[in-house]
Amino acid sequence: MVKIAVLGYGTVGSGVVKVIDDNNKEVAASCGEEIEVKYILDLRDFPGDKHEAQVVHDFNVILQDPEVKVICETMGGLEPAFTFEKQALEAGKSVCTSNKELVAAHGPELVELAKKNNVSYLFEASVGGGIPVLKSLNDSLKHEKIDSIMGILNGTTNYILTKMEKEGTGFATVLKRAQEKGYAERNPEADIEGYDACRKIAILASLMSGEYVSYEDIYTEGITKITIEDFEYARKLGMTIKLIGSCKRNDNGFFTIVAPFLVPTDNILASVNNVFNAITVHGNMLGDVMFYGKGAGKEATASAVVADVVDIVKHLDKHIAVNMNNKKAQLSPKDNAVRRFLVRVADSEKDAALEVFGNKIEVIENDLGEFAFVTDLISEKHFEEKKNTLKTVKGYIREL
Amino acid sequence: MVKIAVLGYGTVGSGVVKVIDDNNKEVAASCGEEIEVKYILDLRDFPGDKHEAQVVHDFNVILQDPEVKVICETMGGLEPAFTFEKQALEAGKSVCTSNKELVAAHGPELVELAKKNNVSYLFEASVGGGIPVLKSLNDSLKHEKIDSIMGILNGTTNYILTKMEKEGTGFATVLKRAQEKGYAERNPEADIEGYDACRKIAILASLMSGEYVSYEDIYTEGITKITIEDFEYARKLGMTIKLIGSCKRNDNGFFTIVAPFLVPTDNILASVNNVFNAITVHGNMLGDVMFYGKGAGKEATASAVVADVVDIVKHLDKHIAVNMNNKKAQLSPKDNAVRRFLVRVADSEKDAALEVFGNKIEVIENDLGEFAFVTDLISEKHFEEKKNTLKTVKGYIREL
Repeated sequence: MVKIAVLGYGTVGSGVVKVIDDNNKEVAASCGEEIEVKYILDLRDFPGDKHEAQVVHDFNVILQDPEVKVICETMGGLEPAFTFEKQALEAGKSVCTSNKELVAAHGPELVELAKKNNVSYLFEASVGGGIPVLKSLNDSLKHEKIDSIMGILNGTTNYILTKMEKEGTGFATVLKRAQEKGYAERNPEADIEGYDACRKIAILASLMSGEYVSYEDIYTEGITKITIEDFEYARKLGMTIKLIGSCKRNDNGFFTIVAPFLVPTDNILASVNNVFNAITVHGNMLGDVMFYGKGAGKEATASAVVADVVDIVKHLDKHIAVNMNNKKAQLSPKDNAVRRFLVRVADSEKDAALEVFGNKIEVIENDLGEFAFVTDLISEKHFEEKKNTLKTVKGYIREL
Repeated sequence: MVKIAVLGYGTVGSGVVKVIDDNNKEVAASCGEEIEVKYILDLRDFPGDKHEAQVVHDFNVILQDPEVKVICETMGGLEPAFTFEKQALEAGKSVCTSNKELVAAHGPELVELAKKNNVSYLFEASVGGGIPVLKSLNDSLKHEKIDSIMGILNGTTNYILTKMEKEGTGFATVLKRAQEKGYAERNPEADIEGYDACRKIAILASLMSGEYVSYEDIYTEGITKITIEDFEYARKLGMTIKLIGSCKRNDNGFFTIVAPFLVPTDNILASVNNVFNAITVHGNMLGDVMFYGKGAGKEATASAVVADVVDIVKHLDKHIAVNMNNKKAQLSPKDNAVRRFLVRVADSEKDAALEVFGNKIEVIENDLGEFAFVTDLISEKHFEEKKNTLKTVKGYIREL
């Protein structure tokens, strides 16, 4: 019998307790022994709850109980989660968490602290909800040279883009409906501005580099400027638009970005719709593999936390190696990235646009007093320079 | 330094050696120590080959060398592979293999033998090539109650069906081209009759049940009867056609089948094209996750074998539990499975067909002297009975 504590009895925390309750037999079979939730830390009381008796308000009760071997931090946010996790690791307790904000900010440091104390720090649920992608990167794919990881990492924005595409409804209206349905937060900034996806690609990029990629160094664009017209142009090109977080290895380091991208419809990522997430990993021997599933939701996310608990219990007296450390990874400057761009310009600047970007580019007409074209391969820097010579650019989207 | 042997220096075997050579640093980092290929068993000599000196012709050399801890069996076929694997496990050597034929026939027995000898028997490469699905089932998803596994398990048939759909070319022509390109064997029966997919779903079904599902007990239909017209009807229904291997848990046991299925285009499996494979797993907490990648190919398959080697080396003095045993799983009879069917009947039998299957069914017209319709939900048994009352059934396809 291994005793664990859950910090935070909110959506994910109560999900963790539920998974351990409902799948008791399977969890025990996976671990080789039974798991008991000894404490649940929350500021609130839960009168009448099945686990009322386990609820405590003081983290020190958990910290000082030598019986507790594993702590699931499902509170979210930076503090007090960061302090609690550090204290737990220093006290020789393993920690697993769904807290992507904290992992993106301090993951490498916490991994090193876990190593120093011969315990484990795992965070499968911080990326892609229930999808077992971090474990696979850390395990089955670790002998591969990974040169690219990219994915649809935020369910809310993918839901919005899917509805915009399939129903032809504008961003603001779809966002409002998503909020009504609970698919988007009342304050949706973290999702729609790409900040959430940015934290997730930062975690994936850190694992890929084996070092530390700070989310603050990742160029991030959200989906707020995407319009119905963009989808019409995309359709004419045999593409769709997805918010993609991407990390690619090149000779100068790692290039990471979060932005809306044009994705060809024959790319499997184009078929990942609604609230689903997917992460594509390219290995030198393996080629592309993709992991797909629910990127959020109480039970799916909790299932990933429990997967970490199981892994830790199976290796209780051992540090489970996680491929990141606190040295900053060398990032390749955004300016150097080379790609194609879809650009929308007013009809009045057609001649100027063709002159700047080359006369051979294919023009896609529209009857809105504008037209669009796809550039040749061009660096971000040159694109920016050329774009700035035009006065009526109505929007642009990168091509994957 | 851990020493291993590779049995069979063909496509997969030479791939294993290549992965260990090319990704030497990554393999060592994954294992925590270096791996050396001490022997390569093959009937042939390989003069001039980098690993010429490692080639031996007598398995006993390997069996009797106590330095060899792990054996990669990449010969394929039942014998002598089965004998070699048994002898290796009995001699206290762990075995990993890409040999789906052998795993489907004797996997549970070999897992039990490995357990008895406190060594491991792993076979990631036997299903889905390089896709880390077995490891995930055996590890990250083991605490889930899995109620369904289904997938596109054969790259050759998926390539053929994709070409038929996208190019409107008939089965025979596409098969011939696939053979010319090396995507299909000269004797393609194992692929196009569904036997290969059957072995793979048998392995997945065994893992899902925790017991033994024999491939011989799985109802299997190939793709040889699928026509261009079937794809036209499917398109009108918003669907496509995929060869699906499926195992579902119900109250009466496990229902397993391999057959062409109509798949709605909004199901992610419909977007898995060409030689790619994908496996969808449904867990009670997790919902659907899908694993996607190359289902075959020298390096991708070899990468999965090496993933097993790494796993074994990390747990060298331990049996890695695999969720199957030699007790036959209880299978639910095919007759009871309930689903919809697309049926094609000659125009001359329209009245009879509508009377038998119900007047409310929607009819899809064609100008070939036939029409098609989709039945209501109906058991396989009742469908068979009703279908047999008609004389001009030109084909039928199950709906997923």
